[in-house]
Amino acid sequence: MDKESFVISKFSNKFIGDDGAVLGKWVLSKDLFLENSHFKMGWLSFYEIGKKAMSVNLSDAIVMNAKPKFALIGLMLPKNITFKEIDELKNGILDISKQYGVKIIGGDTVKSDILGISVSIISYAKKPIFRKKLKNGELLAFTGNLGESLKGLKTLQRCAKNYKILGKNSRFRNITLRDKFFYNSSKFINSAMDISDGLACDLPKFAKNKNIKFIKKLKKYEFLSGEEYEVLFSFSKKNKFRIINEAKKARIKLTIFGETIDGKYKKRARNWHF
Amino acid sequence: MDKESFVISKFSNKFIGDDGAVLGKWVLSKDLFLENSHFKMGWLSFYEIGKKAMSVNLSDAIVMNAKPKFALIGLMLPKNITFKEIDELKNGILDISKQYGVKIIGGDTVKSDILGISVSIISYAKKPIFRKKLKNGELLAFTGNLGESLKGLKTLQRCAKNYKILGKNSRFRNITLRDKFFYNSSKFINSAMDISDGLACDLPKFAKNKNIKFIKKLKKYEFLSGEEYEVLFSFSKKNKFRIINEAKKARIKLTIFGETIDGKYKKRARNWHF
Repeated sequence: MDKESFVISKFSNKFIGDDGAVLGKWVLSKDLFLENSHFKMGWLSFYEIGKKAMSVNLSDAIVMNAKPKFALIGLMLPKNITFKEIDELKNGILDISKQYGVKIIGGDTVKSDILGISVSIISYAKKPIFRKKLKNGELLAFTGNLGESLKGLKTLQRCAKNYKILGKNSRFRNITLRDKFFYNSSKFINSAMDISDGLACDLPKFAKNKNIKFIKKLKKYEFLSGEEYEVLFSFSKKNKFRIINEAKKARIKLTIFGETIDGKYKKRARNWHF
Repeated sequence: MDKESFVISKFSNKFIGDDGAVLGKWVLSKDLFLENSHFKMGWLSFYEIGKKAMSVNLSDAIVMNAKPKFALIGLMLPKNITFKEIDELKNGILDISKQYGVKIIGGDTVKSDILGISVSIISYAKKPIFRKKLKNGELLAFTGNLGESLKGLKTLQRCAKNYKILGKNSRFRNITLRDKFFYNSSKFINSAMDISDGLACDLPKFAKNKNIKFIKKLKKYEFLSGEEYEVLFSFSKKNKFRIINEAKKARIKLTIFGETIDGKYKKRARNWHF
């Protein structure tokens, strides 16, 4: 058992095991975004660090069909960070918050050995979508192109310590969230999660006590690329063309790759975070 | 301006500036508890790290007159942490959570260079108490004995890298929260905060645009000792004997040391976290 699964098993209760915890009409989620775990210094601008820390949290809310409303921010700031860098970090956090109508209502600031952002998001959901609602005989799909985040990471690891080597639209630097497609399709979606550790790690969490029959062969890099924040979701076969239609309307790529069947899907790779 | 104040000024809105943010009947608060910022490895047992991380957060809820109900936990775990140590950390978190009726509803676990815990608490408050309600002509008091946490810290810094040199009841290792006294006295309390950075730093935050006339001379160590998590609060003179009576009933020491007057109280020392 890896340490993350160990921790989850230790805190196990009915609230835990999804992207967010549901309390009445509210969904609460929390994600850490840390130097040397999610990025190395120089791999993202300070603006991008702030934006990405918020985005990975907004992603949790979206895949639960919840509208993010409020956030608490915990900032871990290294001693040598400048006021200008703090300002850029703050702009990254606030710009994406404004875009999604999220109000920062509190938090904490601590001097730290590493740069890090802990975000808690409070979202409103009339009808939350849960991972555990996945049934047999459903179709499985993901949005967008998987693999770009890993490609960006490898370039940074191999060639450079500077984010400028990647284009501005690199998925490693800038996540595109799929909120419009997801909210519009939500009535046809049965269960969902975001792809944060790579399909190889996330599929077993999603499928849990089901197996997957692949109806499309996926590439290795599609399995291994983490921090994609594309949406992995399921729907009944009868809604297939409605889902395809919503993806077309939102102009996003959709890959229907599998079907849930009896059995148990096995994890095929280690966690992605380096 | 220090970096913490800079961050607070940048995110300024009506929710920010108290121990927690109030949304309807709910109070949301967040505190980070980090290795090399709040403790060094060996200064607390893993059980105590878990317990203290939760306690400093419960303290925020208590001084807002809110009953903590739910928590989200972000765990930053160093590579070399053992399963036994994770288990002790978890026991520290869960024991104090159970004691206060708090349910852990979610969180995140990330491999990290440092050990750290980010806690967000959701509390219920019928009638929250705010810092900003402080008026002129009120009495200022704090609970307990200030200075013990600093004494513990100095012993650890000077003599040893091991928490066992401090007694089990050392305030550095074990915080005593003042929930019973506070909830029972809340109808007489006008404004409150917890003492986390030491009176020298916390009094200017509390007094804000008021000055303080000291009616009792305090010792230097009472000003400088941080992480006490004693309660700093204000009340009208007419309630003085009711407050003293509640402190007696709860068997806690009470120091009435000042009165708010016109003017501006100035910060006299640097932030305490080392």
